[in-house]
Amino acid sequence: MDETYFEGEIREQPETLARLLRDGRAAVERVAAIVRAAAPAWVTIAARGTSDNAARYAQYALGARNRLSVALAAPSLFTVYASPPSLAGALVVGISQSGQSPDIVAVVAEGRRQGAVTIAVTNDPASPLARTAEHTLALHAATERAVAATKTYSTELFTVAMLSAALANDEAAWRELAGVPELFARALDLASPALAASRWRASERFLVLGRGFNYATAFEIALKIKETSYVITEPYSFADFLHGPAAMLERGFPVILVAPSAQEDASSMLELLDRRGADVLAISDDPAVLAHAGDALELPPGMSEWISPIVAIAPGQLFALALARARGTDPDRPRGLSKVTETR
Amino acid sequence: MDETYFEGEIREQPETLARLLRDGRAAVERVAAIVRAAAPAWVTIAARGTSDNAARYAQYALGARNRLSVALAAPSLFTVYASPPSLAGALVVGISQSGQSPDIVAVVAEGRRQGAVTIAVTNDPASPLARTAEHTLALHAATERAVAATKTYSTELFTVAMLSAALANDEAAWRELAGVPELFARALDLASPALAASRWRASERFLVLGRGFNYATAFEIALKIKETSYVITEPYSFADFLHGPAAMLERGFPVILVAPSAQEDASSMLELLDRRGADVLAISDDPAVLAHAGDALELPPGMSEWISPIVAIAPGQLFALALARARGTDPDRPRGLSKVTETR
Repeated sequence: MDETYFEGEIREQPETLARLLRDGRAAVERVAAIVRAAAPAWVTIAARGTSDNAARYAQYALGARNRLSVALAAPSLFTVYASPPSLAGALVVGISQSGQSPDIVAVVAEGRRQGAVTIAVTNDPASPLARTAEHTLALHAATERAVAATKTYSTELFTVAMLSAALANDEAAWRELAGVPELFARALDLASPALAASRWRASERFLVLGRGFNYATAFEIALKIKETSYVITEPYSFADFLHGPAAMLERGFPVILVAPSAQEDASSMLELLDRRGADVLAISDDPAVLAHAGDALELPPGMSEWISPIVAIAPGQLFALALARARGTDPDRPRGLSKVTETR
Repeated sequence: MDETYFEGEIREQPETLARLLRDGRAAVERVAAIVRAAAPAWVTIAARGTSDNAARYAQYALGARNRLSVALAAPSLFTVYASPPSLAGALVVGISQSGQSPDIVAVVAEGRRQGAVTIAVTNDPASPLARTAEHTLALHAATERAVAATKTYSTELFTVAMLSAALANDEAAWRELAGVPELFARALDLASPALAASRWRASERFLVLGRGFNYATAFEIALKIKETSYVITEPYSFADFLHGPAAMLERGFPVILVAPSAQEDASSMLELLDRRGADVLAISDDPAVLAHAGDALELPPGMSEWISPIVAIAPGQLFALALARARGTDPDRPRGLSKVTETR
């Protein structure tokens, strides 16, 4: 089978992440020093789609490791309604692969107008978003050709993780980050999604469950499946799932469980899924989870939780690719989407 | 057919909302004066399930009308991880029907420990959440017996709207709020969901689209369908839908479009849905939308946008009830759920 851009960009990520760490660290350290000096009261992040899932990761990374409260902006408050919310005293971050979407630019522009520290995280340092923000962190990911984002997602997460390490001035964290490209390569080697994709190729629905730092992973896997296989796929945190949606569970319901061993609670969620007869594909390095789940995509062992989402997306991307192949859709050109989406 | 608690509580809402306005206003005014004096830099809201959808409404109501940036908390940051985010200078609000969930209580407890102004919005003023917060706004909704929440959702929204009016000291807003119980009663009378529910009774999936203030409405309708009919149902804002998930659209895809005429953009979304052959049920008072959509649940005309979500949930609740009946499920006792969900 001919390689798609989607697959090529998935497999390129270890190299892309290594380049970002090498070429991007100085800018991250510089911006982190400015943020530390400004001591923002909270952080507002504006993003859509895949980039919004990177923002979900930032809520945990900056929250748990830098004690920053993170708000995910409702961009239409800045474009549709008369008076935008106050951003005075905040750090305002816009995340966008293309840096083009007018609503994301509008949030950052308003932040700057109100005197907030503003950062653009984008793959295009010449984009409107980068020109609008006071500071830019480039993804160094080269051109992404597939419409469904992969390497710009992992580099967005990696940029957030680097910013967190720099804000905390944490050399141990930087050492962990240095290991991520190799961990990502191992995750690509370990995952064998073809069997699960073939077995599930006719499924009309999926659930993806994750929690904490990997809430973002659940959302991003669900989005990749929707974009490339057109199957309705809902992502949930464990807790949100229990507050209502768990009623949907029935015998044979296909569920992807994101459960790196660094995270608690995966075993009790797996028990619930078992009791209700769900058909579970686990993404984990925990021997107990791997043995217990119906099917599994194995992660390399020993990752700390905060870096695990950067790596745990790898088997999810490969599963989306395998599912698209099994269903005969073209992951490079999802129906009705284009690479740059401009919303207002 | 015997009336269920679910239906009884749906139909009780005009009266419940009127009681809340009468019995709850003084407490709201008192708390609003304290919040105004504290002048919080931003607002963090902790909530799960239906109450989290009320928090989504608060992000727009307090954002567009009171210029407050609102963060929806990730409660596990306060229960699972070592050092919780800083809440100094914030207003911290916990929203919960039962006031029992330990993770929601933990966010408010940490806010109070850090010196933030804290508010509990709950139907049980003797609950752990109410005892933990410095201030309590009771929903005055009497006991809710159906597991799937209805009257506690509309009273949570109404409480947020009352708080917004009180913070702005806006007598015109209070006059609009006084009209809500009657508008809700008219919405219940206008909606005829039986035909759509019967036609869609075998559907295995739904989308619900809304935007701005009615982003919350889309989420809450989707949750009611999942809880009472067990059908996977994804809610999206118009913009988030265009950034990826729109690839799922195909001929006959059942889509509920929440489109009160006060909101722009509904017509262009309806055109897109038409072009892709989606099967649309519109919730609207806009004659053009009502005429153009395949099927419609009519709203009373002339509501301003900020109060429309309190009313627009009425036809959504009735549709969920009709769908559960058509599918033969019991909306009072959703599979695998209980009235109080405790997550940590």
